[in-house]
Amino acid sequence: MLEARLSQTLLLKKIVDALKEIIAQGTLDCSDNGLELQSMDNSHVSLVALSLASDCFEKFHCDRNVSLGLDLKSLGKVLKCANSDDAVTIKAVDRPEKITLSFESDGKERTADYELKLLNLDQDHMEIPKKDYTCYIQLPSSEFARICRDMSMFDESLTIACSSKGIRFSAKGDLGTANIQLNAGTAMDVSIEVQEPVTQSFAGRYLNTFTKATPLADRVKLYLSEERPLLVEYPIEDYGHIRYYLAPKVNEPDF
Amino acid sequence: MLEARLSQTLLLKKIVDALKEIIAQGTLDCSDNGLELQSMDNSHVSLVALSLASDCFEKFHCDRNVSLGLDLKSLGKVLKCANSDDAVTIKAVDRPEKITLSFESDGKERTADYELKLLNLDQDHMEIPKKDYTCYIQLPSSEFARICRDMSMFDESLTIACSSKGIRFSAKGDLGTANIQLNAGTAMDVSIEVQEPVTQSFAGRYLNTFTKATPLADRVKLYLSEERPLLVEYPIEDYGHIRYYLAPKVNEPDF
Amino acid sequence: MLEARLSQTLLLKKIVDALKEIIAQGTLDCSDNGLELQSMDNSHVSLVALSLASDCFEKFHCDRNVSLGLDLKSLGKVLKCANSDDAVTIKAVDRPEKITLSFESDGKERTADYELKLLNLDQDHMEIPKKDYTCYIQLPSSEFARICRDMSMFDESLTIACSSKGIRFSAKGDLGTANIQLNAGTAMDVSIEVQEPVTQSFAGRYLNTFTKATPLADRVKLYLSEERPLLVEYPIEDYGHIRYYLAPKVNEPDF
Repeated sequence: MLEARLSQTLLLKKIVDALKEIIAQGTLDCSDNGLELQSMDNSHVSLVALSLASDCFEKFHCDRNVSLGLDLKSLGKVLKCANSDDAVTIKAVDRPEKITLSFESDGKERTADYELKLLNLDQDHMEIPKKDYTCYIQLPSSEFARICRDMSMFDESLTIACSSKGIRFSAKGDLGTANIQLNAGTAMDVSIEVQEPVTQSFAGRYLNTFTKATPLADRVKLYLSEERPLLVEYPIEDYGHIRYYLAPKVNEPDF
Repeated sequence: MLEARLSQTLLLKKIVDALKEIIAQGTLDCSDNGLELQSMDNSHVSLVALSLASDCFEKFHCDRNVSLGLDLKSLGKVLKCANSDDAVTIKAVDRPEKITLSFESDGKERTADYELKLLNLDQDHMEIPKKDYTCYIQLPSSEFARICRDMSMFDESLTIACSSKGIRFSAKGDLGTANIQLNAGTAMDVSIEVQEPVTQSFAGRYLNTFTKATPLADRVKLYLSEERPLLVEYPIEDYGHIRYYLAPKVNEPDF
Repeated sequence: MLEARLSQTLLLKKIVDALKEIIAQGTLDCSDNGLELQSMDNSHVSLVALSLASDCFEKFHCDRNVSLGLDLKSLGKVLKCANSDDAVTIKAVDRPEKITLSFESDGKERTADYELKLLNLDQDHMEIPKKDYTCYIQLPSSEFARICRDMSMFDESLTIACSSKGIRFSAKGDLGTANIQLNAGTAMDVSIEVQEPVTQSFAGRYLNTFTKATPLADRVKLYLSEERPLLVEYPIEDYGHIRYYLAPKVNEPDF
């Protein structure tokens, strides 16, 4: 059985908000080490992977591995009912048909229990090869979210060009062209490590859904290599991360 | 004729906001004692009753009883045009065809007058028997509003179970089940008086419209007895109240 | 060529927000003196005129007159991408086919360039006779916006009556009648200069679009004369203004 208690519901809210726009349903794999979830997005283009170590929890007990098929929209609805500073306990028996979420206010004057039915989902866990990337960028997550949003007004395709001079985001459409250049610096705290310059184009609407994870982390990490999927990583404090993978577009834009 | 002056329009705004979602039109009965309005809701299921003593007004003059058939949506529109801290004077002649609302800013630099046509409404004033109830609960009105909203995500029916141990709100639907338990205590200031425990189910959407009165009062009073309509009361300072009555559902839920 | 630099994008945002609801496209005439734009609104009823002196700019260079046919909705989208406190530089070559807007954050850590295609617009510059008006009113722009909004709930036509006693705004419709009276005074800082009293009616929906300019100026100036277009002027600091002209309705209302 699983019993996991977080002192603040807020973290769980942020995680589910980050996932529920991109995957409707997903299987949460629970083990003694913590929680993992991996899934292709609804249109089977990008991949999302959550990892949350057991240390993240005030109390964590999982004596036998258990897989929970979750409807993330439903889970999001339940979490809307909780105060952000309520403590939350997630419970499931072995071979579970439902999951229980219990919320407690400080002082336990108010307690709320929700039971959600679990889903039977096909699982195809992909092995993600952990290769090196030739460009590694860190920037404020809010800045990345804003760039993705602004660029998507111009075109559905967003080009990221990374060199030792800086990162350039570009889009070109009927409205005109847009170029945003970020340089490594202190005010915005952008850091860039480049072994080889990379220029790749991506479908902006996936990048936009990735940025639903913005509240999880002040800073986002981008990893790029020529002809390899972009990795967008939002760290969850020291306890884990949400990672999004998106393959580049094949046709290079004519910039 | 009627002439009633409130020093702050805000109170009138809150009252009309509490009523206008549940009744489209209503007859305001004005007498020397103050104002009364009683009406079934638009779908003739619940009953709403407003009572406002003449003491509530800075100035109140009503030498002959007068009944004003009001369109509450129109009245709400006029009130949107007023500043919350304007003084407002309501005027109507005997046998009136219209009502006048006059708003004055502090210093009278800005005055605004609105005339609204009155409606000829059938009136069937019900006598509400003032019986005793076996459960009497007081809780923060915002907490009650939130519970009604949260529960309505699960099912259209909301069960309230009241015992000396506390109040339990429950709903069960396709999404799963939800239980919220409030215990008497100091932090949230919930008070419960129980002569006999009661468990009854109600249509959540009516409860949700009742909670439009939340801004009127910090605390709401619930009165329950077995097989009698629930009474939800929002006091208006020491001057009156809005009361909502809703009959329980006949079929008990299978909790 | 034109090169004009504003230290704050905010002013340009406010100007474009004031124009883009009322004119879809317009020609910006650039000369050594500054920028001018004049256009009938989309339905060819009212006239809008922008004037912005070169002094308004941190840097202004225009060695040859140039006319820029702008799509204001597109320009508004680009401006949404900029921080309000970014510096912005507008550039166009002689006989231009596009306009470039460059935004720089403080410290230049972030730079963004947008190119917008220009439009070939017919231009019919009207000479606006600068006659005297018999009534001249100054009032808070937010108060004027609110009155226009409130009145439009009652009727599509808004009557402005100006006398030495004050200004009265009136509307009469199915809902009832509305009258708002402003008196010259200190709290709200309304000033009224009247040579001859004027009463004229105007189409409220145009007045409502004029009030999109409210963020540009704390105070708005109204100029009225019998049977002449109303002039609504929003000053842009000491550097210029946006002026709106609207002809009165021919049929007097039956107040």
